[in-house]
Amino acid sequence: MVCILEMKAKPKLQEPVLIEGLPGIGFVANITALHLIHELKAQRFAEIHSSSFQDLAVTTDKGATLSPLNELYYFKGKEGERDMIIWYGNTQALTTLGQYELCGRVLDLAKEFGCTYIVTLGGFRQEEIRATPQLYCAASDSETLDEALGLGTKPMVGQVFGIAGIMVGLAGLRGFKSFSLLVDTLGTHPDAVATRVTLGALNKFLKMDIDTSRVDLAAEETSKILESFGLIRNVGEEKKREEQQFRWFI
Amino acid sequence: MVCILEMKAKPKLQEPVLIEGLPGIGFVANITALHLIHELKAQRFAEIHSSSFQDLAVTTDKGATLSPLNELYYFKGKEGERDMIIWYGNTQALTTLGQYELCGRVLDLAKEFGCTYIVTLGGFRQEEIRATPQLYCAASDSETLDEALGLGTKPMVGQVFGIAGIMVGLAGLRGFKSFSLLVDTLGTHPDAVATRVTLGALNKFLKMDIDTSRVDLAAEETSKILESFGLIRNVGEEKKREEQQFRWFI
Amino acid sequence: MVCILEMKAKPKLQEPVLIEGLPGIGFVANITALHLIHELKAQRFAEIHSSSFQDLAVTTDKGATLSPLNELYYFKGKEGERDMIIWYGNTQALTTLGQYELCGRVLDLAKEFGCTYIVTLGGFRQEEIRATPQLYCAASDSETLDEALGLGTKPMVGQVFGIAGIMVGLAGLRGFKSFSLLVDTLGTHPDAVATRVTLGALNKFLKMDIDTSRVDLAAEETSKILESFGLIRNVGEEKKREEQQFRWFI
Amino acid sequence: MVCILEMKAKPKLQEPVLIEGLPGIGFVANITALHLIHELKAQRFAEIHSSSFQDLAVTTDKGATLSPLNELYYFKGKEGERDMIIWYGNTQALTTLGQYELCGRVLDLAKEFGCTYIVTLGGFRQEEIRATPQLYCAASDSETLDEALGLGTKPMVGQVFGIAGIMVGLAGLRGFKSFSLLVDTLGTHPDAVATRVTLGALNKFLKMDIDTSRVDLAAEETSKILESFGLIRNVGEEKKREEQQFRWFI
Repeated sequence: MVCILEMKAKPKLQEPVLIEGLPGIGFVANITALHLIHELKAQRFAEIHSSSFQDLAVTTDKGATLSPLNELYYFKGKEGERDMIIWYGNTQALTTLGQYELCGRVLDLAKEFGCTYIVTLGGFRQEEIRATPQLYCAASDSETLDEALGLGTKPMVGQVFGIAGIMVGLAGLRGFKSFSLLVDTLGTHPDAVATRVTLGALNKFLKMDIDTSRVDLAAEETSKILESFGLIRNVGEEKKREEQQFRWFI
Repeated sequence: MVCILEMKAKPKLQEPVLIEGLPGIGFVANITALHLIHELKAQRFAEIHSSSFQDLAVTTDKGATLSPLNELYYFKGKEGERDMIIWYGNTQALTTLGQYELCGRVLDLAKEFGCTYIVTLGGFRQEEIRATPQLYCAASDSETLDEALGLGTKPMVGQVFGIAGIMVGLAGLRGFKSFSLLVDTLGTHPDAVATRVTLGALNKFLKMDIDTSRVDLAAEETSKILESFGLIRNVGEEKKREEQQFRWFI
Repeated sequence: MVCILEMKAKPKLQEPVLIEGLPGIGFVANITALHLIHELKAQRFAEIHSSSFQDLAVTTDKGATLSPLNELYYFKGKEGERDMIIWYGNTQALTTLGQYELCGRVLDLAKEFGCTYIVTLGGFRQEEIRATPQLYCAASDSETLDEALGLGTKPMVGQVFGIAGIMVGLAGLRGFKSFSLLVDTLGTHPDAVATRVTLGALNKFLKMDIDTSRVDLAAEETSKILESFGLIRNVGEEKKREEQQFRWFI
Repeated sequence: MVCILEMKAKPKLQEPVLIEGLPGIGFVANITALHLIHELKAQRFAEIHSSSFQDLAVTTDKGATLSPLNELYYFKGKEGERDMIIWYGNTQALTTLGQYELCGRVLDLAKEFGCTYIVTLGGFRQEEIRATPQLYCAASDSETLDEALGLGTKPMVGQVFGIAGIMVGLAGLRGFKSFSLLVDTLGTHPDAVATRVTLGALNKFLKMDIDTSRVDLAAEETSKILESFGLIRNVGEEKKREEQQFRWFI
């Protein structure tokens, strides 16, 4: 087993937009994806396991077991709404190789479902935050960039780490249109405020009017899940991978 | 060679329970497995080599050479007793990838032998231990959880590292019933007391009456084997993998 | 996806010299390659992606997205000039395995295009630099060494790290002639002076007269690109790979 | 390219003994192998490249380029002498996976050439050394152990790291007879004295009388080669692999 994508259903979608929402800075992407799944009543149709995910299981206070996992949900748009694929999960891959492999799998599936447009989400860490967090974008090509700038974003300057960055690059190289939507965040906690700003821009892009009043619930749920996986911790507490690997025999 | 499972015999088993007992916290799983092998006179029928095990050999005081190895033993139950597969070894894999691969191999074999139930064992590190160590459980599904709670366990809350955790997660995803049985331990030495508590719950689960009077012998033997592999050391003495890899040319 | 070489065009070349110019010490190789591409109006005909490159994307001040990438350009020589393949990129591979794989791919392509001669470039870090930086060489065989010494170089003594070193070794083992051209540099910045010295020797080797007056422009452009990828930083600021891999969830 | 064994000639050998002599503690194995090659005028017939070797090239004071490499030499015994395969090289693999893969390749070749007996060599680091360094052994089985003890060795107790250890373990698992011959050494320099003791035991085992008067020359040559690869350095100077991998862009 390396990176396996398992189909649970085979929905018929029409040129869906793929929206990436894995855990990352400020957990904005992750909260957004969870909120979209809730609000749109999106349906789970695929799951992804990778041996580059963490080697542990997590238990809830009721004794249930969660594994590191990525999932794909779909939303079949009503009249005038676009179909969507929402990429959700409780982890990114732990290695560079694993990240690229994960993106490759998802891009293969996206192509298969006729997707031509990929939006990745993320936070842009800041020391201080203005009343209204600023949005930034990075895009696969100048036409897509213009579209992203039209949502009220500024061009991002710098490095976009993790899936949010790799996907835009790889998507572009494979002929997708793609932009990354990044938002100011302190990055210290699951950030509902930043998520609302992101959802505002997504609403504009999707020409929809997704309600954002329940974002705090999604932020809280995200917080619980990621805490249980040890993904929310203080900077400086970062465990080296070596330590993690040997932890079982201490 | 990556991860090879070599069959040494082909026993006929009827819906065996697979019990995992690799080295981990407090070495409870490892002692338990060794004790079961001794008491049940379980037969060795497969061995597993992985290039993710340690790259060394270990010699005994008689000059014999031991390699890092996992083994599978079987027990053919007498009337009213369940068949078992016992997963024993002197190491887990050193990398995340190796851990997932190892679990995958064992789950393939389990399926092949008609196994539908997997129990993993482990210690739960505590700073102080009560007179009677507490048992915890994590399970693949709520029905199995109820069964595990019925053995006198509390739901585990938190992360279960290593094989004990991954297996329950992967087993669940692949349609097995599975629970992990974790027991309070200081984790500083091969813990015979904690092992007896674990065996008590296993006896209840298996509806058997395996004698626990010789657990200390199994703990001592485990201690010797794991010391020779350098797996019993003080916390803080942890060698980084890099150091290990370069050790040959210092 | 591991290491993929994608052909964009299929030029007809006659025994081309392959010149390697990836980022390395003093960025001499990288500036040289960029300058050659500019001056010779070399044409891009292949790109290389590897999952051993960095897992990020980089954005420019206009919002465009750059991925870690290697590229191959060709130059069709006019009368009396040799054909060339220029190997350019914004990164080397991050792992030993990735480096070997990258070299293997390029050597396969080189063979396919009838290339028999490979020149790698690099800097040789010094604490102080003379008015005219000294050139050094390492070669696949004694005949090629003589040719390299004839360009005004001294034999290099010591280790040649990275692509510049591996390629000469692997090229020799696979029957190519190959030398590495290394030049004194402080290594602290994209070094235009050292690059001019390198270009002088290349001109002699190629029996050409490539203008070096615009080297500073190439150095500046290189500086911008590599800064955006985080490849120009102070010694001591070096991030460990582990930190990089986990950066997405801090 | 991962681990490639390239045959340069196809000698006919009769049940050859394979003798391993890669760099390790005190460089005893490496000097011994080089000395055997010199004295027996052994012929090179295979070379092994691995992407788990170091990613660099090394240059001599004459500008020649050396790559990390393993080689196999053969010796066709005269009347009453055993045929031999000598495994020589300037490096072991840098990763656990690479080590196992390397051993696997060599064991495949050994089987192909009718080899049934494998001797690995090494040093056993001591703080102080007696006038005559003691020899130790570890063996694949009790019969082979007796044979090794008959050479004046004591049973080794503890861990045997690197190729010397893994090979005895893997060889045993694959049906070869195998022992490791380890000798007291300070481990701080290429140890000619320890090498002579090792050669004494090898002479006894092979029933030969290989001259040891030129061992110092082999030690010196070994010293030069390994220094150029950076394999002889002070403890504490050990570079982490991460540093090595990133060295090209500092």
